[in-house]
Amino acid sequence: MNSFGRIFKVQIFGESHGLGAGITIDGCPAGISLSENDFEPDLSRRRAGAKGTTPRKEADLPEIMSGIFNGKTTGAPITIFFRNMNTRSGDYANLVASPRPGHADFTGKIKFGGHNDYRGGGHFSARLTVGIVAAGVIAKKMLPNIQISSVLVEAGGSTNIDQAVDKAIADHNSIGGIVSCNVQGLPVGLGEPFWDSVESLISHAVFAIPATKGIEFGSGFQAAKMTGWEHNDNIIDAAGTTDSNYAGGINGGITNGNNLLFRVAIKPTSSIAKPQKTMNFESGKVDELIIQGRHDACVALRVPPILEAMTALVLADLMLLEQQTKRIL
Amino acid sequence: MNSFGRIFKVQIFGESHGLGAGITIDGCPAGISLSENDFEPDLSRRRAGAKGTTPRKEADLPEIMSGIFNGKTTGAPITIFFRNMNTRSGDYANLVASPRPGHADFTGKIKFGGHNDYRGGGHFSARLTVGIVAAGVIAKKMLPNIQISSVLVEAGGSTNIDQAVDKAIADHNSIGGIVSCNVQGLPVGLGEPFWDSVESLISHAVFAIPATKGIEFGSGFQAAKMTGWEHNDNIIDAAGTTDSNYAGGINGGITNGNNLLFRVAIKPTSSIAKPQKTMNFESGKVDELIIQGRHDACVALRVPPILEAMTALVLADLMLLEQQTKRIL
Amino acid sequence: MNSFGRIFKVQIFGESHGLGAGITIDGCPAGISLSENDFEPDLSRRRAGAKGTTPRKEADLPEIMSGIFNGKTTGAPITIFFRNMNTRSGDYANLVASPRPGHADFTGKIKFGGHNDYRGGGHFSARLTVGIVAAGVIAKKMLPNIQISSVLVEAGGSTNIDQAVDKAIADHNSIGGIVSCNVQGLPVGLGEPFWDSVESLISHAVFAIPATKGIEFGSGFQAAKMTGWEHNDNIIDAAGTTDSNYAGGINGGITNGNNLLFRVAIKPTSSIAKPQKTMNFESGKVDELIIQGRHDACVALRVPPILEAMTALVLADLMLLEQQTKRIL
Amino acid sequence: MNSFGRIFKVQIFGESHGLGAGITIDGCPAGISLSENDFEPDLSRRRAGAKGTTPRKEADLPEIMSGIFNGKTTGAPITIFFRNMNTRSGDYANLVASPRPGHADFTGKIKFGGHNDYRGGGHFSARLTVGIVAAGVIAKKMLPNIQISSVLVEAGGSTNIDQAVDKAIADHNSIGGIVSCNVQGLPVGLGEPFWDSVESLISHAVFAIPATKGIEFGSGFQAAKMTGWEHNDNIIDAAGTTDSNYAGGINGGITNGNNLLFRVAIKPTSSIAKPQKTMNFESGKVDELIIQGRHDACVALRVPPILEAMTALVLADLMLLEQQTKRIL
Repeated sequence: MNSFGRIFKVQIFGESHGLGAGITIDGCPAGISLSENDFEPDLSRRRAGAKGTTPRKEADLPEIMSGIFNGKTTGAPITIFFRNMNTRSGDYANLVASPRPGHADFTGKIKFGGHNDYRGGGHFSARLTVGIVAAGVIAKKMLPNIQISSVLVEAGGSTNIDQAVDKAIADHNSIGGIVSCNVQGLPVGLGEPFWDSVESLISHAVFAIPATKGIEFGSGFQAAKMTGWEHNDNIIDAAGTTDSNYAGGINGGITNGNNLLFRVAIKPTSSIAKPQKTMNFESGKVDELIIQGRHDACVALRVPPILEAMTALVLADLMLLEQQTKRIL
Repeated sequence: MNSFGRIFKVQIFGESHGLGAGITIDGCPAGISLSENDFEPDLSRRRAGAKGTTPRKEADLPEIMSGIFNGKTTGAPITIFFRNMNTRSGDYANLVASPRPGHADFTGKIKFGGHNDYRGGGHFSARLTVGIVAAGVIAKKMLPNIQISSVLVEAGGSTNIDQAVDKAIADHNSIGGIVSCNVQGLPVGLGEPFWDSVESLISHAVFAIPATKGIEFGSGFQAAKMTGWEHNDNIIDAAGTTDSNYAGGINGGITNGNNLLFRVAIKPTSSIAKPQKTMNFESGKVDELIIQGRHDACVALRVPPILEAMTALVLADLMLLEQQTKRIL
Repeated sequence: MNSFGRIFKVQIFGESHGLGAGITIDGCPAGISLSENDFEPDLSRRRAGAKGTTPRKEADLPEIMSGIFNGKTTGAPITIFFRNMNTRSGDYANLVASPRPGHADFTGKIKFGGHNDYRGGGHFSARLTVGIVAAGVIAKKMLPNIQISSVLVEAGGSTNIDQAVDKAIADHNSIGGIVSCNVQGLPVGLGEPFWDSVESLISHAVFAIPATKGIEFGSGFQAAKMTGWEHNDNIIDAAGTTDSNYAGGINGGITNGNNLLFRVAIKPTSSIAKPQKTMNFESGKVDELIIQGRHDACVALRVPPILEAMTALVLADLMLLEQQTKRIL
Repeated sequence: MNSFGRIFKVQIFGESHGLGAGITIDGCPAGISLSENDFEPDLSRRRAGAKGTTPRKEADLPEIMSGIFNGKTTGAPITIFFRNMNTRSGDYANLVASPRPGHADFTGKIKFGGHNDYRGGGHFSARLTVGIVAAGVIAKKMLPNIQISSVLVEAGGSTNIDQAVDKAIADHNSIGGIVSCNVQGLPVGLGEPFWDSVESLISHAVFAIPATKGIEFGSGFQAAKMTGWEHNDNIIDAAGTTDSNYAGGINGGITNGNNLLFRVAIKPTSSIAKPQKTMNFESGKVDELIIQGRHDACVALRVPPILEAMTALVLADLMLLEQQTKRIL
């Protein structure tokens, strides 16, 4: 349930306001250099996205609890833990009765019979993505010839992102955004027809990123308005290079050697400073809800390193799987 | 690789121009009434979509090979096979050298070292979805209180679907489309945070449908242009009913009791009658390619019953999984 | 539930007195030569074990339904089906009320709410092992440098096997036996510590063989009576050769390059000609039960090719998995 | 690889001489009371087995890192960590060159390309079973009506266990043993035919216990010497009670409501004080090896709580799975 992958597998655990958030990576090959410092660049990109955010500042210090010896992976499971340093759980006490619109407060309460840790979203919190980013750093090391690059291309419907975020902050509101991902250097042949298609696996991972509402590969939703004559990418050399890339680098679920391209829609942050209406389960009536503290005005700002990490997890797993189909008998 | 599901599991097999296409359903509870006739309504919807299509007519006669006794499921694996009756493999001989643009001819050839069955796309063919529709019929029987309804809402960029298809046929071209899905009657609590989110599982299944380029839940890509104030669905009663449904029926990966809504983008059929350009691996040059026979002018027409089937597979599995979290200890 | 393996995966289906028994092999590499004739040697060993058996004679004709093209595996799922030719279901009508001692009649009835196909054991029947033997033939082809050899070493407590079986037949009784397995040519390094140990995976597969009561590796139960000084296998060269093989070729769950050795205990056939006592669920009393027809006097005679097949399934999967840990980064 | 279970899943991590050993339990239902104190009884049984052992004393203090809120499970993953307090890694430096007979030093080195943490066996160490015992405590809480009871019934070939262990200590040697397990209170219907048989799943888990060489259910290896007439357990009432229990509580892979019985063979501890011979990979010759420190004279003494834990993991998972087959449609 909280794990992903077939050979290169990750298992997350932790809570927003508990001891911390962690991840175990199982199936990582031995011999990869790894130290705590390797995580900082991507972790800092994740933090840097947090414009107009909560005053909660987490140092995001990774503690490697297992799987590393003499500075290298051993082939045994790698567990990385991020201790929560800066939590104020009192902020959330009133949420037991009043589920926040757009959050998992209501669904989590019903699903887990009221036993879920509701503080800051508990196990549902985006705090958990800190471990996913860390696992992505390891996955990227397994893909030295592949470049995964994700950027926020639009926020609040505008490409003038800074201004759109500033306006949202000023309005005590929040905005969504579009994040794109481009992967270069992939070999032909990753993925499988049907359920293990590259699109199936990437979308599976991407919808695990909180606030994701849609994904499209290559031409995406635009394909619905195109003709076959326009949409078909003509193959122009023996390596499979195409003269356009509406396919987004995938045919029949399998990488075709061209760039893998996809775009992800991120909803506006659910926590906003404006008063909202929600059912109060104590009073039995719809009441006004005021969410304390400040929050990310645009969570999409933080998404690029998380999206790269998810993509790297999928591709590292597919690269390991692919070893076998290449086997000459 | 060719299987899906955790408790209610399906495994597909077969080829477009081989003996036939089949599916095995493992994990289906015992005692469900099932006969060959039950499959016909959805199979016929899948065929009926085939306007302007290949003269290949398949009767789609399901043969139940195992798992049924005295007209009911036994709890043992159910295998259903559809024998191919109407294949003309000669049509495809020239594709060994010239991979068709938009198809998996090139990726399949490289991935499987030239051993793939290239006739009609072989194992990559949408012919395989006949088994998936059959499995969906069984899954729907497991969800008696849940209504899954999918329709083609737009083709070639137009809601005037018949005319758009007729024009594509007249142009020797093909068009894409948008298919929506609406699920009513879901309980609160299906799905999990992160990788087993309802969106993750449904998108995983949906991208296994050939020609799918995108998926969006609820507000989808529109969410990127909205503010939190607009997007948040306010909870207005103790059952979790919301006054809008931008979430598409899911919060934190878990069904919230409102309708599950999503939309899927389908690309135009890759096989078109117009001459195209592609690499010829025998001559070593880009040559003209003419694809013989006629083909679906708009594959999106066939997608609704397949999309319903994929959705039913995911939901049946989640319903079985959910039995456990409700367990009182 | 009815599947096994992680990369090289098998899924069984079928019944003793239904249409037939089959298996789907998913994850088999492309390019392996395969024809229906390849299965006959191991299938015939399985039949040949049937001394003193039921007059039911099955031709065991494999029908390859998918996954083969031009005489070779394509990388797509391979389904093989064995149609039942010779069934007399009337023999089993009385078993609905009276579960046979030693069989799954009672447990199958309760587990599946009375919907199980009880004829000849239905899906529980050893008839299903015909597909497993077929999958084993493919797995063996993937292991060209590895020899898997299984023999019946003892029946009814005696190494004079023919005489012991003849006596059991004369007594209208049945006997158990011990089957050994020896695997030569394994590389060092297959398997994992803990749950994916070679012993874990082989025992998992072996206990799927009907009538199996125990398994031991190397010294096995004898180890319990030994000292460490006696039991430790000393390593005598750089290849890891040991001067004894109490380990049975495995240390820490991982093959050590010496022969893999294990032994399996098979119980006497449950169906015997002597009248027995069992609960009659119609009369509500313990009644005499007479099992019609004749049955294998010693099922252990048939086990060697099935045990080889199960071993080959595990090893083929481990060989594919092992590709990745050898990856140089 | 280092995980086990389908719904109730465990993932282990850690090393003998690293930071510690841990386990994550995913899929545990919400609402089970749990505190650090609950682990002590079984952890102390595991320690108490350590007669004649290493002077290394570990306090085995469990740290619950996630998944518990207000003293109850939340439904989110539970991670429990045991920090290593008492390690002297210098003891193991000479093992890089000289793999210990009977240990995984050689196989681990080859498999992981020399990157494995060799100190005290690293990730192969029985130290990891501390987490398994902890997960077993939680699994047992999920099975309130089921009693799992395991005892050491024989050591060094003798039932006079204390004397046998004392003699082994005096001899600077070690001895093996037989551990039995008896499970009472199981419902009819857990498990599946073939690969998810109760025997398959339990043996899979049990061979993950270091030093296990064999397992037998019910009559076990004795069955090979019996006749069907002797071996068949007659059903004597409508609940499925049998007048003997050679089946060990399982028919056709499925629990039959009688006691589940199995026995496990444990080899003598590989580390002994006597000088031994092994290949020295530095000198390229077979040299004498002296293993420093003292070690368990009989690891079988520690096995009962670990065996109970493994059994509980399997049964908790099967109980959750079984919810679905009981579903009335």
